[in-house]
Amino acid sequence: MCEANVYLADGRKETLILEAVDRIIPEGPDSWQLTSIFGEQKTIAGRIRAMQLVDHRIIFESVERP
Amino acid sequence: MCEANVYLADGRKETLILEAVDRIIPEGPDSWQLTSIFGEQKTIAGRIRAMQLVDHRIIFESVERP
Repeated sequence: MCEANVYLADGRKETLILEAVDRIIPEGPDSWQLTSIFGEQKTIAGRIRAMQLVDHRIIFESVERP
Repeated sequence: MCEANVYLADGRKETLILEAVDRIIPEGPDSWQLTSIFGEQKTIAGRIRAMQLVDHRIIFESVERP
């Protein structure tokens, strides 16, 4: 199966948001709905920083800069 | 290998832009650099409409609306 793990990056720190993600669709500006192969859903706020599909990694980053 | 095929959608029509994509990184507003597992690179202009990773599909759509 070719799902990916979705991370939210804050500087160098990466937080795992959802594992085994199958589907990602935009919900609005900088908002994305994630659905895992198990049917779990989460919404993530941010922009895509990088996708590394062979490594099963998709990294988002927060848009807000304090 | 868990690469994906990248398509550009225009209404219902989908055009295959690059097969076996491993890495996708943003280059600018609505511009993305694609790199396949064979090292081939292409730039695609558009926004992400949907990612269907288990189906190896990532669909972009053009931003310009005539």
